[in-house]
Amino acid sequence: MPYRAPVTDFQFLFDHVVGLKQIASTERFADATEDVVQAILAEAAKLSEEVLAPLQRAGDLHPARLENGVVRTSPGFAEGYQAVAEGGWVSIAASPEHGGMGLPMTVTSAVNEMMGSACLSLQVSPLMTQGQIEALEHHASDEIKAIYLPKLVSGAWSGTMNLTEAHAGSDVGSLRSKAEPNGDGTYAIKGQKIFISWGDNDFTENVCHLVLARLPDAGPGTKGISLFLVPKFIPDAQGAPGKANDLKVVSLEHKLGLHGSPTAVMQYDGATGWLVGEEHDGMRAMFTMMNNARLGVSLQGIAAAEGAMQHAIGYATDRAQGRSLAPNPTGTIFDHADVRRMLTTMKAEIFAARAISLSLAAAIDMETATGADEWRARAAFLTPIAKAFGTETGIAMCNIGVQVHGGMGYVEETGAAQYLRDVRVTAIYEGTNGIQAMDLTGRKLADGGEAAYAILDEIEERAEAARHSLPELAEPVWQATESLREATEWMVAQTDMNARFAGALPFLRAFGRVLGGHFHLTAAMATEGKGPRASLAQFYIAQLLPETHGLLAQATAGADTLYALSQEDFAA
Amino acid sequence: MPYRAPVTDFQFLFDHVVGLKQIASTERFADATEDVVQAILAEAAKLSEEVLAPLQRAGDLHPARLENGVVRTSPGFAEGYQAVAEGGWVSIAASPEHGGMGLPMTVTSAVNEMMGSACLSLQVSPLMTQGQIEALEHHASDEIKAIYLPKLVSGAWSGTMNLTEAHAGSDVGSLRSKAEPNGDGTYAIKGQKIFISWGDNDFTENVCHLVLARLPDAGPGTKGISLFLVPKFIPDAQGAPGKANDLKVVSLEHKLGLHGSPTAVMQYDGATGWLVGEEHDGMRAMFTMMNNARLGVSLQGIAAAEGAMQHAIGYATDRAQGRSLAPNPTGTIFDHADVRRMLTTMKAEIFAARAISLSLAAAIDMETATGADEWRARAAFLTPIAKAFGTETGIAMCNIGVQVHGGMGYVEETGAAQYLRDVRVTAIYEGTNGIQAMDLTGRKLADGGEAAYAILDEIEERAEAARHSLPELAEPVWQATESLREATEWMVAQTDMNARFAGALPFLRAFGRVLGGHFHLTAAMATEGKGPRASLAQFYIAQLLPETHGLLAQATAGADTLYALSQEDFAA
Repeated sequence: MPYRAPVTDFQFLFDHVVGLKQIASTERFADATEDVVQAILAEAAKLSEEVLAPLQRAGDLHPARLENGVVRTSPGFAEGYQAVAEGGWVSIAASPEHGGMGLPMTVTSAVNEMMGSACLSLQVSPLMTQGQIEALEHHASDEIKAIYLPKLVSGAWSGTMNLTEAHAGSDVGSLRSKAEPNGDGTYAIKGQKIFISWGDNDFTENVCHLVLARLPDAGPGTKGISLFLVPKFIPDAQGAPGKANDLKVVSLEHKLGLHGSPTAVMQYDGATGWLVGEEHDGMRAMFTMMNNARLGVSLQGIAAAEGAMQHAIGYATDRAQGRSLAPNPTGTIFDHADVRRMLTTMKAEIFAARAISLSLAAAIDMETATGADEWRARAAFLTPIAKAFGTETGIAMCNIGVQVHGGMGYVEETGAAQYLRDVRVTAIYEGTNGIQAMDLTGRKLADGGEAAYAILDEIEERAEAARHSLPELAEPVWQATESLREATEWMVAQTDMNARFAGALPFLRAFGRVLGGHFHLTAAMATEGKGPRASLAQFYIAQLLPETHGLLAQATAGADTLYALSQEDFAA
Repeated sequence: MPYRAPVTDFQFLFDHVVGLKQIASTERFADATEDVVQAILAEAAKLSEEVLAPLQRAGDLHPARLENGVVRTSPGFAEGYQAVAEGGWVSIAASPEHGGMGLPMTVTSAVNEMMGSACLSLQVSPLMTQGQIEALEHHASDEIKAIYLPKLVSGAWSGTMNLTEAHAGSDVGSLRSKAEPNGDGTYAIKGQKIFISWGDNDFTENVCHLVLARLPDAGPGTKGISLFLVPKFIPDAQGAPGKANDLKVVSLEHKLGLHGSPTAVMQYDGATGWLVGEEHDGMRAMFTMMNNARLGVSLQGIAAAEGAMQHAIGYATDRAQGRSLAPNPTGTIFDHADVRRMLTTMKAEIFAARAISLSLAAAIDMETATGADEWRARAAFLTPIAKAFGTETGIAMCNIGVQVHGGMGYVEETGAAQYLRDVRVTAIYEGTNGIQAMDLTGRKLADGGEAAYAILDEIEERAEAARHSLPELAEPVWQATESLREATEWMVAQTDMNARFAGALPFLRAFGRVLGGHFHLTAAMATEGKGPRASLAQFYIAQLLPETHGLLAQATAGADTLYALSQEDFAA
């Protein structure tokens, strides 16, 4: 089934759930009028449906490859990328002074999701560039901004993030790449980086690498890391790509999925780099980029789930099999209760995850527009939840998508399996979901739970407001929130950080579950408890929200049981 | 990490959980002495570790392929299969009069699991043959038995199951393949079958297909289906493979995983076949084969999970990353609470699923040995639970296995992703898990819940027995069982079958969860609440068993919500 962008869902979420109106009422985002947003959604939908979706299988069947040191991308990807760039879709959020539209992340996120549903492996490229644009906007010198930003925003050049080294993954602080001053304000970058998404391509004039490395006088750990911009071709005085820099792609990984997205091992042999931000302060700049990327990756999870769901609906409503017991039989497997459970689960989970991610985007926008600490704290708190919940939802829904297809789901030509293979990495990259959960229960609860309680208060207030009109929905949401509040209090009370970390991921999942209930309830309230959105809310709240119970049992169990088995016991 | 067969776990389960002693005390299985069983486990472990495990990657990298109508298997598979056959491992359960050892399914199951962990795609072949042997033992004429069984048991010939047609998957009754009497007691088989595992190979002298087809006077549906044995080469008077039969492999599927196992489209162009069992009674014979295969597939799920867990443990105890907060630091990611949660979950879930599947095998053995209705009913009830729970556990654990590896998990060379790709089909073939759940809540509750209640009674009795010695384990198991009993009563009370089917899979999962708690409690009782098995039981019962709550909310929600959304709503 060809992809159809869920424009109506985005519009509903904008209007009734995540508060785009509030964002558009700020001076910063005054351009995001209803007309503009509608036009953006419609145009991005068209691009995704017509140009990008046809590339999905080609990227899988004909992976990007390395030929004599040059990356050759999948058939059609160059043309697809040009369409993205020419349409201005690489970054609609970038500042107008560098050629962007200055639109909210909320709208950008919808666009990113649509492009990701259509062709996830290609969409990784603009997503990386978006992160680089944001990092440069915040931390680079005016000179660098003037040279690089217009090129990145137009899509003429692309950007990458270089953090990981073979021995330094989640523990970025242990990286060893070096940067030595050349005496002319530039630096010589030396080292090897792995897992570099879109480390090279054959369709942009230049590829700009943001590389974490250590200066000669750097201390150990993350505080000794600086950030450098290292272009593939060094721009000449006019800003045109000039001399090739001393860097190369050593190899590309053979991955489970995302075959169209080249994942490179990059070698820097004294490549010329420019410092971005202050010396030894690279992690701060990198976090600007990573937080953006974490939101983006959450939407990749949802994008794949949406694609997988549409694929599954297409199959289910076409495949005749078995005797129907449905009230309104269609004669297809769409009638079967278990198939209907799978599809309803997909639709309900996608709504929940999308609402969470867009509400994170909205918080980022309000932080940008107002500079208020409350919005900053809310965005910071929601980031790990959106990333892990969105990507776990992505994997689980793509797995269901395969199941809906029965035996055909296991056959690659069907396309259902590709969604599962492609989406699998989203729970791993930009900080594994385990790292997200540690961030949530460590750093993001370091305020004593203030940001968490603000969100829980908001959920309970809304549930209170619906207690009389929609009691069967409001009451379970309120109850689950109370349980989550108790678990949050338990977390905050743990001075042994490992007790928090032991329950971190189940706690994060429970928070996502409850937020999902909150947003479903919001949708039901907006539709006065009638129609398909309210039915979906009823399904989610009655059947998926009760998972919170089991998750919180894990969240608050402490670390002891986890360490009861020794290494020998595991090997026995 | 090289595979190490979990012989100690099997022995523990045999001795303390599933009751192999009781089986060995019957006349039928008197040969299954402690010494014999120990020797079998040790030898099968050796074969799996040394001969089969090295083939795992080769099968993935070099899929079976079709060359001019001939299937060429993956490098080393022919030798691997010969080792399986020569060791007598194709079927140790087959009757001694045909060359088997007549050993219990309980022991066979452990052997099958070990071979499956080592190389799942090769193990599919003997598993299919085992099912065929059992079907022929029960339903074939003495003449057929005499010719075929010794060849199948020795592994000289292999067997396949041919049910599915392009338009007839889960709905077997709609198949159209035809069988016309040739007038000499044989039949001419015509039709096309799809998804035929190991439909051909280049290492057995003959391939024997059991094919479902319709006689000219057959009625519609499953009652008009007969079963035929259709060999690739027609045996001559001496029983040696003679003239090629009129059948061929049309194509092989490109699958997500199990690349080493050729999945064929088979074309029968008037091939000579022999009736197995009575005319129009093919489904009964096929069910003999399928029930066996469902147990076997449940163990494939567990096999992959065990392989994935060992792989993950190997990586986790080797990879240094991040600062340790563990009580006994190893300096590797094995110290991190979230990694430990993943590994502990794997170990606890594998124990639960394995105990369920082996207890099904034990019930089959007791049914075989005693012919008692109680054992028959228990085996019938446990079959869909073991199949779906074992395979869903397999997929979920292999997914965790990828996650433990971080970025390396997404790189194919690591091998973690292969387990996930390979195991994915187990939730689909031999009856999708949705079909299993319909079988459980439909056919298997048609006795008014008698078989279910017998199991629930047994669980509660054991929990009662442990109430004083291990209250913190016994009490939650007892409580969860009571909740499950209520859900079972709800199920039995539904006269609208679709209300049952709407909650069927969550009900099945909840039953698996509770059985898992029961077997963990049993293990803890056997070890007097001390040591790693008791710790694992504590983890499962405190942290995984509470999932039952959420599952039962789904199980008893009824069908209405599932049908609230129309086809248009889904497409919107």
